[in-house]
Amino acid sequence: MNNNIFPTSDILQRADKETLLKQKGVCIWFTGLSGSGKTTIAIALEKELHAKGLLTQILDGDNVRAGINNNLGFSEADRTENIRRIAEVTKLFVNCGVITICCFVSPTKEIRMLAKNVIGEKDFIEVFVNTPLEICEKRDVKGLYAKARKGEIKDFTGIDAPFDVPQEPLIVLDTNLLSIEKSVATIIEKLKL
Amino acid sequence: MNNNIFPTSDILQRADKETLLKQKGVCIWFTGLSGSGKTTIAIALEKELHAKGLLTQILDGDNVRAGINNNLGFSEADRTENIRRIAEVTKLFVNCGVITICCFVSPTKEIRMLAKNVIGEKDFIEVFVNTPLEICEKRDVKGLYAKARKGEIKDFTGIDAPFDVPQEPLIVLDTNLLSIEKSVATIIEKLKL
Repeated sequence: MNNNIFPTSDILQRADKETLLKQKGVCIWFTGLSGSGKTTIAIALEKELHAKGLLTQILDGDNVRAGINNNLGFSEADRTENIRRIAEVTKLFVNCGVITICCFVSPTKEIRMLAKNVIGEKDFIEVFVNTPLEICEKRDVKGLYAKARKGEIKDFTGIDAPFDVPQEPLIVLDTNLLSIEKSVATIIEKLKL
Repeated sequence: MNNNIFPTSDILQRADKETLLKQKGVCIWFTGLSGSGKTTIAIALEKELHAKGLLTQILDGDNVRAGINNNLGFSEADRTENIRRIAEVTKLFVNCGVITICCFVSPTKEIRMLAKNVIGEKDFIEVFVNTPLEICEKRDVKGLYAKARKGEIKDFTGIDAPFDVPQEPLIVLDTNLLSIEKSVATIIEKLKL
C-alpha cells in the first residue's frame, strides 16, 4: 500500500515524536454515566497538563458526534461504529505522542473492550467516573434523564439500558467524595504525569 | 451537548496548543496520481520539519484505509465518505496545533472541495504533486497500473477515471524537474515553516 521508497528507518516513528514532545502518548478513557462529570474532569485535567507543558487532545460527544461521526445514529450498530471510529482516531493521536482524553459513556464491557483492542492494551488507561445515578439524574445538565423518564428517549444508560460497572479500571474516581481538583490530582499522580 | 460546567474561557483553545508547540496547525494536502510521489515527499517533509522541532502527522492510505476507514470500499459513496472522515480527522489534528500532511489521490475538484470545506479554507494548503502519467505508470510501485490496464481494477485514476488538474493549488511540484529535497524545500519556503 505504501508509495514510500525510503528505508523504514527513515520514516518518523512514534518514539521520535515522543522525544520531541518530551512525553509519552497514552489514551485516558473516561467511562461513566451521562452527567457523571467526564468532560468536566477532562477539561480540568487538560488545563493542568497544559500548564505542565504537555500536549493533550480531548475527544468527546461535542467534537466527535458533530464531526467524524455526524452520520451515525444511536442504533446498536451505530453505537459500535461510533466507538470504533473514536478508538481509531485515538490511536492516531497516541501514535503522534499526544495524551488523548476520551469522554464517552461507553456503558458495556464489550464496547470498552473494542476500544481497548483497537487502541492497544498498554496505551489504554480506563478511568471509571463513578458518580451515583441519583446525582447524575439530579444534575441532568442536558435534560436527558427527564426525557428518558418520560420515555422520550429510549435505551438511555442508567434508566432503561444497563451500565456495566468496570471490573478492573486502573482508576476509580468517586466524584461524590472527590472534588474536580482532587480527581485531576489522582489521575496525574497515578499516571506520573 | 456539553457537560462542561466551566466558563468557556477555561477550555483550552487551539491557540493555547499552538503556543505550547510554538507552531501553527495547518493541513498540507497532497493531491496527485497514484505513484506521483505524494507519500515519499510527505515522509521527507515530515523528517525535515521534525528536525526543526515541529510536530507533524501524516495521513495516507496506509494508516487510514487500515484503520478508521477499514470498513469502506471504493464505490462512489465510499470514496466520498473516505475523504470526509479523513478531513474530519485532519481538522482535529489541525485544531490540536499539528502540521497535518495528507496524501490522497483525491482526483476530482468535488472531493478536494469537500475536504477543504470540512477542514476550513484558511487551514487547507493544496499541493499538486504533478508527475506525468507515463512516469507514474512506469514506476508502478504497487503494480496497480498494470492491473488497471488489464481491466482487473476499474475506475483507476489516470487510466479509466479522470484526474481533474487542480486549478489553483498553492504549490505545484513538478517532480520530473524537482528532486525530493527540492520539493520539500519548496514547501517549507512557501509556507515559511
